[in-house]
Amino acid sequence: MNRRSLLKGGLLAGLSVPLVGLKDVIATPVGGPKKAKNIIMMVSDGMSIGTLNMADLYANRAYGKSSKWLGLYRDNKAVRALMDTASASSMVTDSAAASSSWGGGMRVKNGSLNVGINGEKPQPILQKFKEKGKKVGCVTTVPITHATPAGFCVNIDNRGGQDIIAEIYLGLKFDVMMGGGSKYFGEKREGGDLIPKFLTQGYKVAENRNEMLALDKSKPVLGLFAEDGLPYEVDRMHDAELQKTVPTLAEMTMKAIELMKDHKDGFALQVEGGKVDWAAHSNDLGGLIFDQLAFDEAVGKVIEFAEKDGETLVIITTDHGNSNPGLFYADEANKKFDRLQRFKHSNTWLLAQLDQSFSEQKIMEMIKENQGIEMKSEDVKSLLSHFKDIVPGQLYNEANLPFYEYGKILGKYTDVQWAGMNHTGDYVELTMFGPGSEQLKPFVKNYELHNFMLKAAEMPKHFLVTK
Amino acid sequence: MNRRSLLKGGLLAGLSVPLVGLKDVIATPVGGPKKAKNIIMMVSDGMSIGTLNMADLYANRAYGKSSKWLGLYRDNKAVRALMDTASASSMVTDSAAASSSWGGGMRVKNGSLNVGINGEKPQPILQKFKEKGKKVGCVTTVPITHATPAGFCVNIDNRGGQDIIAEIYLGLKFDVMMGGGSKYFGEKREGGDLIPKFLTQGYKVAENRNEMLALDKSKPVLGLFAEDGLPYEVDRMHDAELQKTVPTLAEMTMKAIELMKDHKDGFALQVEGGKVDWAAHSNDLGGLIFDQLAFDEAVGKVIEFAEKDGETLVIITTDHGNSNPGLFYADEANKKFDRLQRFKHSNTWLLAQLDQSFSEQKIMEMIKENQGIEMKSEDVKSLLSHFKDIVPGQLYNEANLPFYEYGKILGKYTDVQWAGMNHTGDYVELTMFGPGSEQLKPFVKNYELHNFMLKAAEMPKHFLVTK
Repeated sequence: MNRRSLLKGGLLAGLSVPLVGLKDVIATPVGGPKKAKNIIMMVSDGMSIGTLNMADLYANRAYGKSSKWLGLYRDNKAVRALMDTASASSMVTDSAAASSSWGGGMRVKNGSLNVGINGEKPQPILQKFKEKGKKVGCVTTVPITHATPAGFCVNIDNRGGQDIIAEIYLGLKFDVMMGGGSKYFGEKREGGDLIPKFLTQGYKVAENRNEMLALDKSKPVLGLFAEDGLPYEVDRMHDAELQKTVPTLAEMTMKAIELMKDHKDGFALQVEGGKVDWAAHSNDLGGLIFDQLAFDEAVGKVIEFAEKDGETLVIITTDHGNSNPGLFYADEANKKFDRLQRFKHSNTWLLAQLDQSFSEQKIMEMIKENQGIEMKSEDVKSLLSHFKDIVPGQLYNEANLPFYEYGKILGKYTDVQWAGMNHTGDYVELTMFGPGSEQLKPFVKNYELHNFMLKAAEMPKHFLVTK
Repeated sequence: MNRRSLLKGGLLAGLSVPLVGLKDVIATPVGGPKKAKNIIMMVSDGMSIGTLNMADLYANRAYGKSSKWLGLYRDNKAVRALMDTASASSMVTDSAAASSSWGGGMRVKNGSLNVGINGEKPQPILQKFKEKGKKVGCVTTVPITHATPAGFCVNIDNRGGQDIIAEIYLGLKFDVMMGGGSKYFGEKREGGDLIPKFLTQGYKVAENRNEMLALDKSKPVLGLFAEDGLPYEVDRMHDAELQKTVPTLAEMTMKAIELMKDHKDGFALQVEGGKVDWAAHSNDLGGLIFDQLAFDEAVGKVIEFAEKDGETLVIITTDHGNSNPGLFYADEANKKFDRLQRFKHSNTWLLAQLDQSFSEQKIMEMIKENQGIEMKSEDVKSLLSHFKDIVPGQLYNEANLPFYEYGKILGKYTDVQWAGMNHTGDYVELTMFGPGSEQLKPFVKNYELHNFMLKAAEMPKHFLVTK
């Protein structure tokens, strides 16, 4: 039965409801599905739907235009699905289990990177692509050894062993690995400096923006632009020195593509906006929205490339919700939300400058200077009183800063409120663009993306995860 | 140019990216789009994405199956879009402006029902459908004069005038109007009892479940099953008397369909799960999830009807987020969330039974009996201390109950947390099933649904809103 008879008299003739299965049957491009020579998976880590929405609202209010991500919908260019995000141990995943679900094709317990509940060690997807001859890599704004990139690369039962993950990377010889986390590679590393070994193995190591921009494809690349995570975008944007030394996510992403795109067997790249998650854990609105917008800038660049290329499947998603922020109903919600346009620094940056010994007046001035907000005396007092009254167990808060209290106070001025300081079990937005995307169903489970990517790239069947 | 040449050598030939515009071109059922004789729009009012997700997680955990709504995605039966929800006055809408955007095709200020910022009074959509010969109606779990049904029916600049809206309904002579709100119609109404006038005008008035189930299509129907809102589903389910007297949303919906479905010119129906919004305003988890599941039951029944009927466009959505609840990361998130399976009553019901004069022991027992939770002494003490310490300005809290405090305490036992007690500017989930759904783009603005429904039903062009 050919396509035409299938359409006219075949499957559709038996359907009582017009649309049942229609997508399955005819959403394939004429001439059969095209192979995705390249795969780019983009992850805004810990992005609740409110984060995506508020970044889009911000873009509309501040620049009069759509975010690039939602612009794909407005222009009817991409397909979308709802993705559930559970791990093997919980309805609420961590980033290690989430990335493992994509990277290894199976659900593992929270905290594990591609080590299953029965000790299974499925081959991570970038190893598969590498084995088949593609160039492969990861870029991120957090340590390159962090859970989300690592879930595409390694098998290790504890995501915390970032110094070990760095050593595994040495053996993997992937083509482009760029982000933060120099402390897991360099002199400060437990177990010894790995940088000389990377150099011996033929790597070019870039340590700042200019070195990164100068990279060429003669050598595999390790880029390390911060000891731990990169600075928040809102802080980078307002610091001339950081602008010179730290690349944007979009710059790292486009460099990675430039280095791999002419390879005859194609490439696979993971791109992570990792500090979106950290900002959500800290209820840090400026950190959150401007890092989401920096991720969005990378989305725009990637789509530009993929549109010209025509052989690249782009997947854009998040691994789980985090803190479920929202712009709340109020008398002047628009005006309050617009205050974000005056932010020069994240809460994390600002709180690190403050000191309990400062006068109320001085703190008021610092808040006005760096976030444009004329804070009431009672709120500054409240902040001061809570300065060491920290919600216990907060992630990414080694300096014990009053993130919770300050986020709550800022909520009065911006109308943005938070439901907590951790991951949520929300199902999440998933977007696809390019060859293979026509196969996307409206609902997917996170681990199904593994085989989805392999099939889109027409990888040999033995690479597929079966169970 | 016929369809085949269009596909093979026409529009697609010029595309550099395989999927651009593909949906526009070929997602139309073979033989051209089919007319939607009937329109059913279903609104779970104030449903943040976490509400939809948690109801689905609950269905999976408690019953081992998908919610009906997300089952449409799992079975690849429906199409979906992201919808922005702004009003003319704010990025965060109220239900009046939201329903007006669909009902009147234009954005109005919060609080207004189809009265524009320049005094415009666009004809509400059910009046249009009625004028063209369709049967029309609304069913809801809140007063039938409340904002969401009223936005499909009337023009009035203040949603608060529910007694006036009831009188406008008398003049409209719509076919099925069922829900709560008898105080806006009966003897207690400001301005006098309207029930005799509805009877004189040929209406059948149903006041309880049995009277509703016995309705036939000989007369137009007014159903009023509570003075104000109907009880929460979790309270109805565990009260034999309420089960006898109060119909479910699914029962009202299927009765409305039964009364209108054989009409030669078709029908248009709005179905609202209105207390999902009230529960979110009260951070009332049991109220929220079980009312969402009651809405979901109605979704299942409507889709069953629409699948057999084949001429019904079903739209399922919400008007805005509310309180952005989420299931949060914790050591035993699954176990904690499963505690919800033991709830017999909503927080609203429970708190109304409590009294500050009760002993701590007695309150503990009541919580255990009605929500299955063994609450710690410190939490009961905290609840008691906050019993009159109410967050000001809470909606739907005439009894001044400590909703905020209790929701926060319950969060420790269920891992469900809330970001506030009001609407959010989140973009929302929108689902379509049946003829016309093939025209849905991945992103829509709320007011665009007005013309969308009219076009799907092939209404004369002069009904369309133009600007």
